[in-house]
Amino acid sequence: MNKKAHFISFEGPEGAGKTTVIQAVLPYIEELSQRKVLLTREPGGNPVAEAIRNLLKAQTEPEIDPWTEALLLAASRREHVVQTILPALKADQVVVSDRYLDSSLAYQGGARHLGMADVQEINDFAVRNPENGEAVLPELTIYLDLPVEIGLERIFSNRTDKIDRLDQAGLDFHQQVRNSYLQLAQENPDRIQTVDATQSPEEVLTAVKAIIEENWR
Amino acid sequence: MNKKAHFISFEGPEGAGKTTVIQAVLPYIEELSQRKVLLTREPGGNPVAEAIRNLLKAQTEPEIDPWTEALLLAASRREHVVQTILPALKADQVVVSDRYLDSSLAYQGGARHLGMADVQEINDFAVRNPENGEAVLPELTIYLDLPVEIGLERIFSNRTDKIDRLDQAGLDFHQQVRNSYLQLAQENPDRIQTVDATQSPEEVLTAVKAIIEENWR
Repeated sequence: MNKKAHFISFEGPEGAGKTTVIQAVLPYIEELSQRKVLLTREPGGNPVAEAIRNLLKAQTEPEIDPWTEALLLAASRREHVVQTILPALKADQVVVSDRYLDSSLAYQGGARHLGMADVQEINDFAVRNPENGEAVLPELTIYLDLPVEIGLERIFSNRTDKIDRLDQAGLDFHQQVRNSYLQLAQENPDRIQTVDATQSPEEVLTAVKAIIEENWR
Repeated sequence: MNKKAHFISFEGPEGAGKTTVIQAVLPYIEELSQRKVLLTREPGGNPVAEAIRNLLKAQTEPEIDPWTEALLLAASRREHVVQTILPALKADQVVVSDRYLDSSLAYQGGARHLGMADVQEINDFAVRNPENGEAVLPELTIYLDLPVEIGLERIFSNRTDKIDRLDQAGLDFHQQVRNSYLQLAQENPDRIQTVDATQSPEEVLTAVKAIIEENWR
């Protein structure tokens, strides 16, 4: 089995430290793979997707419908796949994405109660490779797991000035996100590797490096 | 059978004269129904949808992926349904929409070759009534049909300065749009009524009035 993970996504709640660990691990991936590493993120990563990101982040009154949100995120993901991820993979680069499909399943499917199967159905069209019809999915997803209370404490103490719409939703919402991620990890044991994000940043980085090394043999 | 059509959509290619006939027929619908008539359009009709409309109308390089387009239009439709159409229908108004679901089926499903069934699948989520799970669909759709050449002639002679991305696509594209509309009309004879749009504006208006009257008994 070729275990070389050329497409790696990071998942987890806000406050799990995704951004920090991704930045820290990039040089390691570059050295390990001997390839150029493209760092990208969702929602975002290209002009159309960034416009959608701004639309989603804006406070609208009345609040945007959860299906609208799921469809916009799928549209944004489509551009991300076609304009950014596939060209990089074709050029033999390693792609590291801060969030991908699992975020839609956990947030819109689970926490917004649209159902993970229905959100998956919409996204099947978004991630389909135009050349061969196959789904463009990460070979490896690293899920930074931590209890909801700890994640929220970190958010509120570190960036009270930046609290956006997702942060304002209640504790139940975030618990649903975590439950959904845990369910996805259980259902996809070969792809999704869970890291205990209550550890120190150094310990998290060590664990993440070990997983990436394990998936590059 | 209650044939009162409280939700009426108009469909057809650019150059068919939709906007003109809709404006002309509104007072007639108001008088016939003795109700307030809400005129709306797609893509558009609310702040989020208008932002999406601007995104779609902008010339992007590379050109936006057809699936991105279909997903954005479905997102725009979702807001249209939830924020505009359902509240008006609840208030016992008549809703007249310049384009609706059939446009996505004909343009993205047919002419952009995504497949009408797949585009329908995405839109099933967009048009679902949050209260009862039923699809929010027009009871009556008036399709203004005319040969592609005549439609394009009208567009190019009347508004050469406003030619947008859709107008620039080739003759094949527009032929596919028409074929798809004709197929939809054949498959939905109870809902879609076809009007010969090569007739004079007066004749088209008379035909449209007769259909609306027939659907308000």
